[in-house]
Amino acid sequence: MKQSYWIWYPGDFELYHALKQNFSRVERGYGWPAFWKSDGFRNRVVFRKEYHIEEETSFCVYSKAVGFVLVGERKYPFGKMIVCPAGDVKISVHAGCIESFPSVYIKGEVVYSDRTWMAEDYENAPAAAGYSRYFTDEQQEPSVWNYNETIFMPVNVEPQEDGVLYEFETELTAVLEITYKDAYHPLTVYCGESREEALDKEHCYYSWNPDPQTGRCPRCAVRYAYISGCQEGEIDIKAIHQYVDIPVRAQFCSNDELINKVWSVAEHTFKLCSGIFFIDGIKRDKWIWGGDAYQSFFVNQYLMADADINRRTLLALRGNDPITTHINTILDYTLYWILGIKVHYEAYGDLEFIEQVFPKMCSLMEFCESQLDEHGFIVGRKGDWIFIDWADLDKEGALCAEQMLFAECYRTMALLSHDMGDKTAEYSAYQAKYELLKKNINVFYWNKEKGAYIDSFVSGRNHVARHANIFAIIFDIADDEQKKLILEQVLHNDGIPQITTPYFKFYELDALCRMGCRGEVLKRIREYWGGMIDYGAVTFWEEYDPSVPEEEQYDMYGDRFGKSLCHAWSASPIYLLAKYFVGLEIIDPVKGTYELHPDLEYFDSLDCTLPVGNKNVHIKWNGTNLTVDEQCGIQI
Amino acid sequence: MKQSYWIWYPGDFELYHALKQNFSRVERGYGWPAFWKSDGFRNRVVFRKEYHIEEETSFCVYSKAVGFVLVGERKYPFGKMIVCPAGDVKISVHAGCIESFPSVYIKGEVVYSDRTWMAEDYENAPAAAGYSRYFTDEQQEPSVWNYNETIFMPVNVEPQEDGVLYEFETELTAVLEITYKDAYHPLTVYCGESREEALDKEHCYYSWNPDPQTGRCPRCAVRYAYISGCQEGEIDIKAIHQYVDIPVRAQFCSNDELINKVWSVAEHTFKLCSGIFFIDGIKRDKWIWGGDAYQSFFVNQYLMADADINRRTLLALRGNDPITTHINTILDYTLYWILGIKVHYEAYGDLEFIEQVFPKMCSLMEFCESQLDEHGFIVGRKGDWIFIDWADLDKEGALCAEQMLFAECYRTMALLSHDMGDKTAEYSAYQAKYELLKKNINVFYWNKEKGAYIDSFVSGRNHVARHANIFAIIFDIADDEQKKLILEQVLHNDGIPQITTPYFKFYELDALCRMGCRGEVLKRIREYWGGMIDYGAVTFWEEYDPSVPEEEQYDMYGDRFGKSLCHAWSASPIYLLAKYFVGLEIIDPVKGTYELHPDLEYFDSLDCTLPVGNKNVHIKWNGTNLTVDEQCGIQI
Repeated sequence: MKQSYWIWYPGDFELYHALKQNFSRVERGYGWPAFWKSDGFRNRVVFRKEYHIEEETSFCVYSKAVGFVLVGERKYPFGKMIVCPAGDVKISVHAGCIESFPSVYIKGEVVYSDRTWMAEDYENAPAAAGYSRYFTDEQQEPSVWNYNETIFMPVNVEPQEDGVLYEFETELTAVLEITYKDAYHPLTVYCGESREEALDKEHCYYSWNPDPQTGRCPRCAVRYAYISGCQEGEIDIKAIHQYVDIPVRAQFCSNDELINKVWSVAEHTFKLCSGIFFIDGIKRDKWIWGGDAYQSFFVNQYLMADADINRRTLLALRGNDPITTHINTILDYTLYWILGIKVHYEAYGDLEFIEQVFPKMCSLMEFCESQLDEHGFIVGRKGDWIFIDWADLDKEGALCAEQMLFAECYRTMALLSHDMGDKTAEYSAYQAKYELLKKNINVFYWNKEKGAYIDSFVSGRNHVARHANIFAIIFDIADDEQKKLILEQVLHNDGIPQITTPYFKFYELDALCRMGCRGEVLKRIREYWGGMIDYGAVTFWEEYDPSVPEEEQYDMYGDRFGKSLCHAWSASPIYLLAKYFVGLEIIDPVKGTYELHPDLEYFDSLDCTLPVGNKNVHIKWNGTNLTVDEQCGIQI
Repeated sequence: MKQSYWIWYPGDFELYHALKQNFSRVERGYGWPAFWKSDGFRNRVVFRKEYHIEEETSFCVYSKAVGFVLVGERKYPFGKMIVCPAGDVKISVHAGCIESFPSVYIKGEVVYSDRTWMAEDYENAPAAAGYSRYFTDEQQEPSVWNYNETIFMPVNVEPQEDGVLYEFETELTAVLEITYKDAYHPLTVYCGESREEALDKEHCYYSWNPDPQTGRCPRCAVRYAYISGCQEGEIDIKAIHQYVDIPVRAQFCSNDELINKVWSVAEHTFKLCSGIFFIDGIKRDKWIWGGDAYQSFFVNQYLMADADINRRTLLALRGNDPITTHINTILDYTLYWILGIKVHYEAYGDLEFIEQVFPKMCSLMEFCESQLDEHGFIVGRKGDWIFIDWADLDKEGALCAEQMLFAECYRTMALLSHDMGDKTAEYSAYQAKYELLKKNINVFYWNKEKGAYIDSFVSGRNHVARHANIFAIIFDIADDEQKKLILEQVLHNDGIPQITTPYFKFYELDALCRMGCRGEVLKRIREYWGGMIDYGAVTFWEEYDPSVPEEEQYDMYGDRFGKSLCHAWSASPIYLLAKYFVGLEIIDPVKGTYELHPDLEYFDSLDCTLPVGNKNVHIKWNGTNLTVDEQCGIQI
C-alpha cells in the first residue's frame, strides 16, 4: 500500500491553524485574538486526478466534510469501498466544510491521495493539493494537530502560607494535570514563567480551574504552578509538555562554558517557540508576527533546518489574494515576508515551494507598488503601521529603512525569477527596479557630511539612527567605503542612540559580524545573554536591561509580568555563532555544498555539528587542527 | 431594559447560514455541496460605539467567540458584569471565532447591542452591524437557527408486505421521530415526496437509521415514510415539522374552486420553500439559486410581504467583494441579483438595505462591465454559464436575452441612484448606459422581417426563440408596436418552439398578462397547475408535462424520483392572480399607497386580502360591487 496523505486546498491547513494560533492568546481570563485581518480557509473544494488503471482496483475516501466521490459519471459516498474498473478514468472528490477546511484521505493500492492531486476552489486555476508529513493516517483529522507529549513531574514542591508552589525543571508548554488523593474539590492553579508570577495570584497571566472530570488545565506556558487552598500531599500534579517534534540537528560545544550555556538556553527557547508556526513567545503574544518569523528563519537554518515550519509560517502569514492590508498591519512585516522566502530558498533550495508562492509574491509586490510616492519610495497609507523598531526615528515622509527592505525585496524577486528559469522578463524588470531604487536611496538618504544614512529627507532634520545604517550593511545598499564610514560614524559612535530592543540587536550584531567585529559581538553575547543566565534564565527573555532593578525584571509594557520570558528572537546567538564563528555558509543546499570560514581565534576548542541540506557537517577544532566530516542522507 | 440584538459583521450571518443551506443537499447517502464558489464569513471582527453616559451604568457582553471588551483603556472578559462610569466613553468588543461567525450580545440599561453599533473587519470601512429580529435573547446562538415546530401524526398507516407505510396529511420538512413500543431495534426509514418514492427502497432520496438514543432522523422533505422490517403497531412515528414562521398576509377566495385550490397549493409550496432563504425546492437541490430567488421575490411581495427573507437571500447570494465568479456560476443569475434588489425596493421601499448593498451592486456592475465585447454587449468568459433556460437558443456570441437583463440592470442602478438622493452623477452615468444598450439591442437584435428579436447576430442564423421576446415585453426593451408584433409573431406563433420549463413559463405568463391576454393565462393556469392537482399534488412540482405517462411523472434528469415535487417557482400563480386579476399595484410601500386595476371579468366573486407596506388591503367583489377596505398598522 502506497503512503497516502491527507490533502487540502493549498494554504488552507496553514490558514486554519494560524487562526487557532492567533486566537489563542489569553491574559488574565480574557481572550485576545490578534488585531489584524485574519484570512480564512476555503469551504468548498474539489480534488481531481486522472488515472490510467491497468486492472480493476479499489479505494476508499475518508473525510469529515460533506461530499461525494465522482468516478467517471458515477457518484459514491465517503467511507465506502469503491471499485474502479480498468481503463482511463477521471476521479474527483467534492468536499464542503464550514467549521474547518475540507480535507480528504484516499486509501488504495493505485488510487491514493498525495500531492499529485490537483485542488480547485471554484475561483482560481487548479493548484497542487496541500499536504503535510504529519498527516498520513486515515484516523487523523487535519484540523487537530497531534502534539508529541512528554511528562514532567515537579522537581521542587514548596509549601506556602496558603498553598503549595510546584516547580518544573524548565519552562514548558504544558497541560497541567491534577490528581486528587481524596475526592475532587475545586481549586485554582496559578501558572508562572517565574516563581514571582506564579505566586502573584492577581497579576499572573494564567490561572485555571482544572476540569472536574480530567483534572486538566488548558495548555499554556508554565515553569512554576502555585495552587492555593491546598496542602502538600493533598494532590499530585504533572505537566504534560506538548510540542511539535522537530529534531535539532546542530550541536555546539566549545571550551567556553558560558557560550555553550548560551547556545543551549537559546536552543531550548527556540524549540519552545517553534510549534506549528514560528511564534514570538510562548506566554505572550503567541502570535505569528512577520518580523519575528523572519529572524526565526535564520536560526532554524542552523539549528533544525526544518523547511516545513518555514513553509507553514510563510503561508499562514501571507493569507489569501487579493491582499488589501499589510501583514500584521505592518509595512515592514510585509517586506520581511518576501525576504523570508529568500532566506528559505537559500537554506533549502526549495523550488517547489517557490513556484507555489511566486504568484503571491508578485501580487504582494504589486500591492506594495500601489503605495509609492513620486520618487518611487514606498510610504504608508492611512492605518499602515511603519514600525522598523521601537525607537526615535524621523518618520516624516518615506522612511529610509523601509526603502532598504523594499530594495532587498526587488533583489529577491530578481533572484527567484532568475532561478525559476522561465521568467527572464520578470528577472530583468525586477533587477532594473532594484538598481534604480538602490541608486535613489543613495541619492536621497546618504548624508556625506555625517557619513551615514538619514531616516528621512522630508523633514530636513537629517536625523541619523542606527537602523537604516545597519540595513545598509546587511543588504549591501552601501558600498565598502560607505560601510566603513557607517561603522565609524554610527555603529561605533556613542552619540547615536543605542539599539534598545533585542529584536533589532539581531540585525546590529549581524552587521557587526559582517564588518569583522567578532570580538565585540562575542563580548556582547556574554554580557547580554550571559546576564539573563545570571538571573537564572532557563529560556531567553523578550528583553533584558541589566540596569533595571531585580524586582522589575519581569515588567514590560507597563504590566507586571508583561515580559515574555521565552521569546524566539532572543535565540539569535545560534545564528551568529554558527554563521560567523563556526563560519558555515551554505552554497547549495540541494547538493549539500558549503564553505567554511571559521573564526577560531576566540575558542581553544570547538566540536560542532551544523546542517546543510541532507548532510550534517561535523567540525572539530582542538586549537591546532580543524577537521571536518559529514554525515550524509539525513531524512528531511 | 431596552431590546438587545445579537450583532455581527453585516452579511456574516447570511453567508454562514447559506453555507449550511448549500451544503445540506443529500442524495441517497452522499452529500452534494453546491458546486460554486462558496464565500465564507469573517473570523475576526470588532464592534464599536461611543456613549455619553449620564450616570454610572453596567452591562454584560455575551459571546461564544474568543475576545474581550474594551471600555476606555481597560479590558474586561465576556460574561462578567462591567461597570461603566459616567462620561464620554468608547466601548469596543473584540471577537474572533473560527467555526462560525463572531457575534456578540450586549445587555444593559444604557449600553446594549443593536444596529447602531459599527462593525469592522480590519479590511473595510466601518459598517453598521448586522442583526436579525429572530435573535434577541442572550441564550441564543446565532449560528443555530431556532425553527418553529409543529407535530404531525400520520393520517394513514398502511401495512405492506415487509413493512409499514405512513402517510402525513401533506408534504413537510420534518424530523421523523420513532418511538419503540418494546425495545429499540435498528430499522430504516425510507422517505418520499410521493408514495411511490417511499416504497422504492433503492431509488428514494432519503433513507435514515433513526438515532438509537432519540429515535430521530435528520430533517428532510417527507410526505410518506416507509419502514421496512416492522409491523403495524410495533412503533409510533411522528413528524416534527420544522419551519421558519413567516406569517402569510394574503388571502384569495373566489367563486372558482379550482383557482382557489391552485392558490392554496401554491401557498403551501411557497411556504415550504421559504426558510432561512428562498430555496428552489425542499427535497432537491435545497440550494439558493439566483434565478429561482428572483421569482420568489415576486410571489413574496403578494403573499407574505416579508422583507427579511429577501434581504437574507440577497446577502447570501452576493457573497464578499471582490466578486470573481458569477452568482451560482451563471451570468444571468448575477444579473437577476441586481434586478431582485429592484423588486425588493419596489415592494418594501427599503432604502436602509439599498444603502447597505449599493457598493456591492456597483462592484458587481463593474465586474460585469469587465466582460463586454466591442459593441458593449456582455459575453461569457471561460467557465461562465450562459443559461437563460433549458432551450435551443443560438448562443454564438453575445446572447440577446442577457443584454436585455443587463439593460434592466442599468435601469435599476439609475433608479436606485436617483432615489438615494446624493448620487446624481451615478444616476446620469447609468441612465446613459441604459439608453445606449437599449438602442444597440434594437439595432443588433431586432429583426424587422420576423417582427421579433433574434437570439444572436454573430452566427447569421437569425434564430428566434420566445425568451428574448418575452424579456423585451417585461423589461420594455420593445416599444408598443414591437410588442404587438412579438405577441403575434412569437408568443401566438406555434411555429416558435414552446417554453418547456415552468421556470420560464413564469416570464411568459407575466408577458401575456401585460399584453392583456388574461383569459389565456387563466386557461393555462387551470390546465398546467390544475393538471398537477388532478394527480393529487399537495405541493406544486418542479415540472409537469401532461403527455408523460403516469408512471414516469416523478422522473427528471434521467433519475427516477429526480423531480422535486415542491418547487418554489411553481408558486407563480399567486403573483399572477394578485397582480393582474385582483390587480393590485404597489405605488409607495412606505406610505402604503397603491392602485387597483382589477380584471374581474373572469370571476363572479372575489374576497381577497393583499399586503401593501404595513397595510392589508381587503378587496371584495360580488359580481356587481367592488369594495375595498384596509387594515392598517400591521407589524412588519
